[in-house]
Amino acid sequence: MITIIIDCADAKGLIYKITGVIAHLQLNITANREFVEKEKNRFYMRTCVDGDIQIDVLEAALKNVLPEDHTLILHTGRLKRLVVMVTKEEHCLTELISRYYFGNLKADILAVVGNHNHLKNYTEKFSIPYHYISHEGKSREEHEKEILDCIQSYQPDYIVLAKYMRILSESFTNHFQNKMINIHHSFLPAFKGANPYRQAYERGVKIIGATAHFVNQDLDEGPIICQEVLSVDHSLSSQDMSSAGKDVEKMVLAKAIQLVVEDRVYVTDNKTIVF
Amino acid sequence: MITIIIDCADAKGLIYKITGVIAHLQLNITANREFVEKEKNRFYMRTCVDGDIQIDVLEAALKNVLPEDHTLILHTGRLKRLVVMVTKEEHCLTELISRYYFGNLKADILAVVGNHNHLKNYTEKFSIPYHYISHEGKSREEHEKEILDCIQSYQPDYIVLAKYMRILSESFTNHFQNKMINIHHSFLPAFKGANPYRQAYERGVKIIGATAHFVNQDLDEGPIICQEVLSVDHSLSSQDMSSAGKDVEKMVLAKAIQLVVEDRVYVTDNKTIVF
Amino acid sequence: MITIIIDCADAKGLIYKITGVIAHLQLNITANREFVEKEKNRFYMRTCVDGDIQIDVLEAALKNVLPEDHTLILHTGRLKRLVVMVTKEEHCLTELISRYYFGNLKADILAVVGNHNHLKNYTEKFSIPYHYISHEGKSREEHEKEILDCIQSYQPDYIVLAKYMRILSESFTNHFQNKMINIHHSFLPAFKGANPYRQAYERGVKIIGATAHFVNQDLDEGPIICQEVLSVDHSLSSQDMSSAGKDVEKMVLAKAIQLVVEDRVYVTDNKTIVF
Amino acid sequence: MITIIIDCADAKGLIYKITGVIAHLQLNITANREFVEKEKNRFYMRTCVDGDIQIDVLEAALKNVLPEDHTLILHTGRLKRLVVMVTKEEHCLTELISRYYFGNLKADILAVVGNHNHLKNYTEKFSIPYHYISHEGKSREEHEKEILDCIQSYQPDYIVLAKYMRILSESFTNHFQNKMINIHHSFLPAFKGANPYRQAYERGVKIIGATAHFVNQDLDEGPIICQEVLSVDHSLSSQDMSSAGKDVEKMVLAKAIQLVVEDRVYVTDNKTIVF
Repeated sequence: MITIIIDCADAKGLIYKITGVIAHLQLNITANREFVEKEKNRFYMRTCVDGDIQIDVLEAALKNVLPEDHTLILHTGRLKRLVVMVTKEEHCLTELISRYYFGNLKADILAVVGNHNHLKNYTEKFSIPYHYISHEGKSREEHEKEILDCIQSYQPDYIVLAKYMRILSESFTNHFQNKMINIHHSFLPAFKGANPYRQAYERGVKIIGATAHFVNQDLDEGPIICQEVLSVDHSLSSQDMSSAGKDVEKMVLAKAIQLVVEDRVYVTDNKTIVF
Repeated sequence: MITIIIDCADAKGLIYKITGVIAHLQLNITANREFVEKEKNRFYMRTCVDGDIQIDVLEAALKNVLPEDHTLILHTGRLKRLVVMVTKEEHCLTELISRYYFGNLKADILAVVGNHNHLKNYTEKFSIPYHYISHEGKSREEHEKEILDCIQSYQPDYIVLAKYMRILSESFTNHFQNKMINIHHSFLPAFKGANPYRQAYERGVKIIGATAHFVNQDLDEGPIICQEVLSVDHSLSSQDMSSAGKDVEKMVLAKAIQLVVEDRVYVTDNKTIVF
Repeated sequence: MITIIIDCADAKGLIYKITGVIAHLQLNITANREFVEKEKNRFYMRTCVDGDIQIDVLEAALKNVLPEDHTLILHTGRLKRLVVMVTKEEHCLTELISRYYFGNLKADILAVVGNHNHLKNYTEKFSIPYHYISHEGKSREEHEKEILDCIQSYQPDYIVLAKYMRILSESFTNHFQNKMINIHHSFLPAFKGANPYRQAYERGVKIIGATAHFVNQDLDEGPIICQEVLSVDHSLSSQDMSSAGKDVEKMVLAKAIQLVVEDRVYVTDNKTIVF
Repeated sequence: MITIIIDCADAKGLIYKITGVIAHLQLNITANREFVEKEKNRFYMRTCVDGDIQIDVLEAALKNVLPEDHTLILHTGRLKRLVVMVTKEEHCLTELISRYYFGNLKADILAVVGNHNHLKNYTEKFSIPYHYISHEGKSREEHEKEILDCIQSYQPDYIVLAKYMRILSESFTNHFQNKMINIHHSFLPAFKGANPYRQAYERGVKIIGATAHFVNQDLDEGPIICQEVLSVDHSLSSQDMSSAGKDVEKMVLAKAIQLVVEDRVYVTDNKTIVF
């Protein structure tokens, strides 16, 4: 299966031209979704095709019918490669590893990198390498350099911040533009930054939530992939909110990763289109 | 705007052929959604097109490219015509009339028919005719005949049962195949029939709900359009559930009607495809 | 029925002492809920009692057993009196009036005040006075003075801002400390201020919502009563979000008002306890 | 901490008498919730107390003030002991074991019993005994006898059917009245019995769900503890529904178990009161 993602100026006849290429190459469309962003007059399409085709032949044929100003991405069905970063909290990691171990993640977890070693024993039970890279006694620059070297040795498609609790520098995140997925424990843009459950408690909100997003230079400002919420009331302490929120966090992160590794998420400006 | 709905055997190149017709007629696609039901190898498509075209020209051109065995429906943008049937409860009716009065229903309410007169004053405030057709002292046959004559005088597109609490005979409902929308106060197929909140209370469920569906011959067995639920707990009496459920009922019914009058709902077998 | 609300320092034996007063006065407890805020070591209780009692006798007896530093509120079952303020949007007003007209609001709507006259005809159908007090050609001070005089002539218990779209001055809102309920069309604290749906669209969130809260001096910063959310995706324009959000807004506001008029909401610091 | 659960005929002064016992024994109430079932005129209370007390002293003192016809249960804070039964599906088991391994289950998992061995390796990674007791070549009676002996050797408080896919006989389930918790993959009472996702697909519902309940003699008819749902549409095959439903199943089961092991669930007639 090949997944085609197209982003171009909208015009009459685009679907006809694109599906014409697919029909002439004798490919079968197994999934298809279009979206026109009217404010920007922009056309987006995700099409999955089956059939006997070389990817560069398909790419060339599609380029031929698309307007000059386009983005065209073709994904093969290859399993995506993930490296997961953690600190001490386990719930997101166990969710991902449990899915992976039983063949339900639709991606490979190559390694886990932690700035603490709390999750080492758990991870290694599943024969996944765990790299304990402490930040103690290192400058941020040194620490990030070590992590970067470790990650890059795996050539991952995506980095998953599964409750990695240290702020990463811009020079680090720049290596992974739209390739690093974070889970933030609030419904962004509410309660950015540190201690969102404490902030939520103090504001007296009746809903808490979690947000999975791509990481960019501004903390908690990257394109949002998924969000979910949970009703709370006055009787929850900020610690109770934190406990209750863990279930939402792990499910949102797992869902976001599933969408990303199935090539359903396309980033444009600072937003995602989730096909 | 014309809305095209297609139901045919799946085949390679269908989207290409259909969008080809649209492109050659110089029409602009403003919304497009396909769905392939794999178990039945069936292709469904809803496409909205803008442009200068006569509907029979478009129809003929589309028929030309579709497989023999197809259903093709073309809706113009004409506002749908509704007749609403009620008994005593007001919440669904007030929701529909409030939307209609302020121009948000995307349909016309031609008349309200009630087997009680509780809602007559309210309805008439909005200059909508209210037909009080009591069932008292009449056989079911006579009563339904009166209602039928009244409804048919309005030539409605759809009949809305907005908490009409009498069972309608098969010979009555047969007049309105896939044209009559009911709100049932449970998440079907749970708690069919009378007193669903009482049934829910006695079963001790933790969720109650409401279902909007087309009416067919078997009570509460028709194609489901929308469902929503509400969390409850042991502290609610069956009367409390009934009160709490009203909000869900009216919102589900209003949503279902909006989908139907926008030509987003297609019935196949005993299910709906909601584009 | 009398509803008792108590706020005092927590101590051993409080429930025993309070229910002792109730038992000795031969009253029957029909609802009872306590909550201890551990961070502040504060005890809160809401108890509904039935029986033959003068309210000042009950009050004196309760004060007798409560610690020095307490707040004690006793509500009789009298229907609360509401004045509703609107601008042009109808959905919150129709929800409240529909409930009121059919006896389901558990409060009286005494009057509607609008700075436009769009909703005058609708309101007057229900024999509710509508005061059209335009802001045109008036200073804010003059405009608010006119509104204040109008509202105060009704001696309402609560003011409901049912999509009243002008910012009210601190000197105005000070008249109604914890007595004025607003509906804001976002899940606060996200998207405070103007055009929250536009803000939500531009941020690319996957959830939108609405918040009913008491109004205080800082815009959108008052104690939150209820919040609800709605899932959205990339395909919604900011106008689509605004339309979709209306259903949530009106249901959240109606729910908040129901809680308030049933004396279930107690404000402490900048939070609500919703019993 | 001791958790007191009381079920008795309602009467004036009950809370006063009960909290009087607690006050006179110098105990501190840390949580308290009452509920009166009006249809049955029945009073239910759950109170958690801290302090220096022997449980039989407290029990005797409480019995002294309760009406003749009462049920009184006192739970100490001892961790509950669980045996989990599985077949092939892993998602509920991984959820429970992940929580247990990191100290978040508030209960001990003593052993896992499976009629297949698919989940043996996973379970044993966590040093939890896995008993593979195949049903092959055995009568139901023999098979259940083996399982029963195995379970009883652990003296568990509760048996968790974490997607155990064989029907258990009445003589088996009778051993564990209100002690066996099952997860059923539908929102009961809809879609009882086999293949609920297939049933849901064929009925064309727009919501699927999961129900955690105590097991009694009638399949899927026991007292419901928790239910949650998930929106679906026509595009999901019954296999898609099954995949999507797994997330709801495991979260509902985990939540139900947490409630049960915290002594928050009381069964009366065929319903649960969840305090």
